[in-house]
Order: sequence, then C-alpha cells, then structure tokens
Amino acid sequence: MRQGRYTIEFENKPSVVEWSAVAGQKENEGPLGNLFDMIISDATDGKDTWEQAESELQKTAIGILLDKAGVKDEDVDAIFAGDLLNQCSGTGFGIRNYNIPFSGVYGACSTSVLSMINAAIGVNSGVFKRAISSTSSHFCSAEKQFRQPLEYGGQRTPTAQWTVTGAASALVSNEKNDAYPKIEKAIIGRIVDKGVTDAANMGAAMAPAAAQTIADFLEDTNTTPEEYDLIMTGDLGKVGTALLYELLETEYSINIRNVHNDAGLMIYYLDEQDVHAGGSGCACCGTVLCTKILNELKNGKLRKVLVVATGALLSAISPFQGESIPSIAHGILLTGGRVTDEK
Amino acid sequence: MRQGRYTIEFENKPSVVEWSAVAGQKENEGPLGNLFDMIISDATDGKDTWEQAESELQKTAIGILLDKAGVKDEDVDAIFAGDLLNQCSGTGFGIRNYNIPFSGVYGACSTSVLSMINAAIGVNSGVFKRAISSTSSHFCSAEKQFRQPLEYGGQRTPTAQWTVTGAASALVSNEKNDAYPKIEKAIIGRIVDKGVTDAANMGAAMAPAAAQTIADFLEDTNTTPEEYDLIMTGDLGKVGTALLYELLETEYSINIRNVHNDAGLMIYYLDEQDVHAGGSGCACCGTVLCTKILNELKNGKLRKVLVVATGALLSAISPFQGESIPSIAHGILLTGGRVTDEK
Repeated sequence: MRQGRYTIEFENKPSVVEWSAVAGQKENEGPLGNLFDMIISDATDGKDTWEQAESELQKTAIGILLDKAGVKDEDVDAIFAGDLLNQCSGTGFGIRNYNIPFSGVYGACSTSVLSMINAAIGVNSGVFKRAISSTSSHFCSAEKQFRQPLEYGGQRTPTAQWTVTGAASALVSNEKNDAYPKIEKAIIGRIVDKGVTDAANMGAAMAPAAAQTIADFLEDTNTTPEEYDLIMTGDLGKVGTALLYELLETEYSINIRNVHNDAGLMIYYLDEQDVHAGGSGCACCGTVLCTKILNELKNGKLRKVLVVATGALLSAISPFQGESIPSIAHGILLTGGRVTDEK
Repeated sequence: MRQGRYTIEFENKPSVVEWSAVAGQKENEGPLGNLFDMIISDATDGKDTWEQAESELQKTAIGILLDKAGVKDEDVDAIFAGDLLNQCSGTGFGIRNYNIPFSGVYGACSTSVLSMINAAIGVNSGVFKRAISSTSSHFCSAEKQFRQPLEYGGQRTPTAQWTVTGAASALVSNEKNDAYPKIEKAIIGRIVDKGVTDAANMGAAMAPAAAQTIADFLEDTNTTPEEYDLIMTGDLGKVGTALLYELLETEYSINIRNVHNDAGLMIYYLDEQDVHAGGSGCACCGTVLCTKILNELKNGKLRKVLVVATGALLSAISPFQGESIPSIAHGILLTGGRVTDEK
C-alpha cells in the first residue's frame, strides 16, 4: 500500500534472508575487506575481457548467495538485476546459466536498491515466494566504456570517483523469521536534472536526486533523521555528500549529518587508496549493503536504516552531445530482525 | 498469486486504460500506418542527434498517453520503461521532464512487455494506482550503435531485421471498468542461449526463448493454442518465426500456426518495404501492441491474446568478443474488456 505521495509500505515486510558480495583486490584492501564472501585476486577473474570478468563476478555472487541460502534455481521465482555495461551485458551474460526467470533492471548506480525494491514488491504481493536482487560493476570495464582506455594512463580529476570492482546479490523472501532484516518501505525516485554536465563529477549530478528522495521519504513517513540509525546514500562520494548536506539544509531544512554515511566513502580508505572523491559503480552501494549494512541489521548493531542509492542516467556519449546528466535516487527502509517500524 | 511453475496470475486483473504509439514515416507506410497517434515526418524529429530523436519519441508517446487518458504526472505512481540505447538513454533523457517516479527496465526488444508486467505486478498489489509502461527504438540510433554508420551504406543480410522507429506507452490502472482490456496473467522468461553467434540473425537467437516461454505458459495455465485468439511474438521476423514453429512442434509438440503472428511481420509490408526478415527493436512489439492489439481487445475483435515479447541480451561488442547471444521472452495475457479467463 502507499504512504504519502511517493512511499510504498510493505504490509508483509519481506525478509532479506541471505546476501553475498564478491570484490576485487582494491576493495579487499579497504575498510570492508574482511566482509566479502570472495575476493578475485586477478582483475580479469580468469577471463579474456573486462566485460566477461564483470559477468563472472555477478555469476559468482549469485552462486554464493544460493549456496549460503541453501536454495536451488528452482526455488527462486525471479532475479531482478542489472548493471552499467552497455545493454546490461554484465548481468545478461553473468546469469544466463541460472534457470531462474530474469527481469532486467536499469538504474545506473542505483540498480542495487531498485532491484531490491522490485523484488520486494513482488514478494510482498505474493507473486514471488523468493526473488533475488543483484548487480555488478568493474573498474576496468567502466573506465573503458565511460572514460579512457586504461592503457592511456589518463589523469583523473579530483572530483572523479573510483568504480568498485564487485558484485552483490540478496535473496528477498516471504519467509517469516524475526532473525532476518526486513524491507519495510521503499521509494522509487523521480529524475532530477540540474544541468550538471561534468561527467567526471557524478557526485554533483546525483546529489539533488538524493536530496529529493530523502526529503520525500521523510515527509511521506512523517519521520525525522534522528529516528534512523543510518541514512546511507549510494555513491555520492566526498563532493556529492557535501552538496547533499547543503541542499537538504538550504532547500528542505533537513539536517542528516549525524546519521548519514555514503557507500562511496565507506568502501575505500579515501586518503590512502588514491580513489579521489570516493567509490562509485553499481557494486558500490550494492557491496556495502550486502556486507556491512545487512550484517549489522542482522546482528542488532543497526536497527533502522534508510538506504538511498543514486544513479546518473547519462550514456557514454551523451556528454559529447552537449547533454546534462539526469539523475535519480531510489530508497529502501530496512529494519533489523527484531525491530518493527513504530509510527 | 502463482499458477504453475512460472506464471503469475493477477487476481485483481489490472486494466490497460489507455495507450499511445508514435512512429516514423516508414512505419506510417506499413500496414498499421493509420493507427499511430503521431508520425514524425523527419527521422531526427527536430533534434541534432539520432539519440535525442529517440528520446523525443518516447517523451511524445508518454505526453500523448497522459493527454488521451486525461491524467497528469501527479496521478501516475510509476513509469516502468527502457530501451536498447546504451544506458537506456532513450528513456532516461526522454522522460526526465515528467515528474513521475521512474523504474528503469532492461529487456532488450522484450522491454514493452516486461515493463507492462512490472507495472501490472505493482498495480495488482495496490502499491500503484496507475503505472505507465513505455519503450522506444529508432532505426538510425540502433544502426549506429549496433551495426554500421548509416553513411557507409552497408549491405544488410537477408536475415537482418529493420529496427522500428517509434515509441509506445500504456497506462495500467486499478480502475475497474469492463470496457478496458485486462492483464490477466504474465510470465517472466528465463534466459536461453543456444549458441547462436550471428548478430545479423536475431530471429534465430530469440526463437528458442519464445518457444520456451510459450510452452511454459501453456503448461502452467493448462491451455492449448486454440484457446487464444492470437499468440503474438515480439520480433522474431520471418526467420525466427519459422524456427519458432519448428521448435515448438519438434521439442514441445505444440502447434501454434493457426493462432500466431509476429509483430515483426505485422508492422511492415515485407515484400515491398525492403526490410528483409521483418521489423525489430523495442518499439516493434511495443507499437503493434499499443495500436492494433489493444484497439482490437477494446473493440471486441480480439478477446484473448498472449503477447510474448522477445529480447536478445547481447551488447554491441559482445559478438566481437566471441560471445553467443543470450535471449529471453516475457509473456502477458491480455483479455478483451468484457471477457474473463475461464479455466
């Protein structure tokens, strides 16, 4: 059912029963290094191309997810998944061997949360018993597609973010068990385009979308930031996070500084790992969500988390055609196993 | 709720209350010419690039849809939409000015039906009151991205299909009125990859996916082809349709010849319009569905139609990396206003 203008309330509170995350060596050296289910030591992951490596990451993440959850292909009614490679090919090729109905999702870097929202809508309503949400990104395939061939050794601007090499998957289920994190609410974002044209500054392009979605959600649910243990944005990085605070405070009179963090700031040691403004890519929000956040919701360290994943809806060629960057942010409210949302 | 292994049954039977389709001059000269809401006489649609023209097509189709339905942005809870341009940019840029929550969909040429399925799941369950499904494609942007620059004047193979220039949108609603076509059931497909590597023969790559989805749906619903007025596939064209018949007959013992048609064979005069094996592109199934099919479901000429849209999940570069073409087909069961599905 709906709450307010934009928020979806899941009366059956779908459970996130299991999750998995696979990442590369650079991510392994970051703050979340010990939380990944698997690390690929070689960026090609044994394949011939970066694109195939990304597909392999997603295939692996889903395989681990199924194993951890103790379910088989035939136990899962749908996979909602996507990525940022042209034609979402990281996903298409990655999951082609799973015998599970596949509904492709496109949300740029917001895909992790948008996929989980889609899975939750179906599970909540009973059309699926279990559905997987999944996404991937790869630093090398992203640089090749969106920026420059790696071999150029091109210099990166200070506002640039580093695409996470990884994949993350979650299993959403109608199974009732207090031990599982629950999906309580969700909000599908509206596109915002403030005219930012610098494709090396995604944080600035996406911050207005994040601000809008957070403000909409708080208004719809009649809640304040203090009621959340954490409001985590997707991958605004350092530049976008500063802009988000400013926008929320000046345009919406909302201050989230005490409860906010950004996946792009959580996945790397910014000062030591040469990632400039922070992490990005579909797997940025995805892997942070499917390691630290869901773990801590399960073990009680976190009880109520709003995850707002951001996406920049540009194409690799649209900046060269003089286009600005349309952006979007989708949110999902997760609560710890033993907590329900009191209104 | 679910019926059989793969089929979704919508107990509230969402209505398709309005639909719209915009197309180019070549489509206007085809069999459905008089059914489009608008024809763009110039393929650039007044824009500087083919990509911008495609975005404009989708923007126009949704604008016409809202007008025809007499609803405003704020009356619609979600748009499910996508296209085949890199990063679904036809959609992102096309709908950025609508103040409607946007959930991006990737299904290649199956996007029209996959978007409608997503909209129907949400409307059926009550999380949306009204949701739009939409898609677009453009011959010139598709040729540029997937094949050769138009200026080369490259020769097309006999198995090649012609990408439809157009966009199609539909409004799915919880409004109960016998006059509207209803969405009764849906099936999300599983990826099939039979090893076809010829990117100029999409029909062959996609036919096995269509066969699987049709067979699954008939088995799940315990129905035979004769019970349908029409089983329409997305864009298999001449080559893929012949293969579909053969596959269904030899592998599944199902004969659909008497009730089948293919959107790729319906949108052009194949013998006169130099389109080789038929139409293709996201707008192929989309525009045929959002003109002839929904019109005839409304006026009673058709009463029960299974639409199975097919998609080839390759990327523009995957064939050059030696990859075969993973394919998928999603189905939706539509019934005429005054008909319900008797089991």
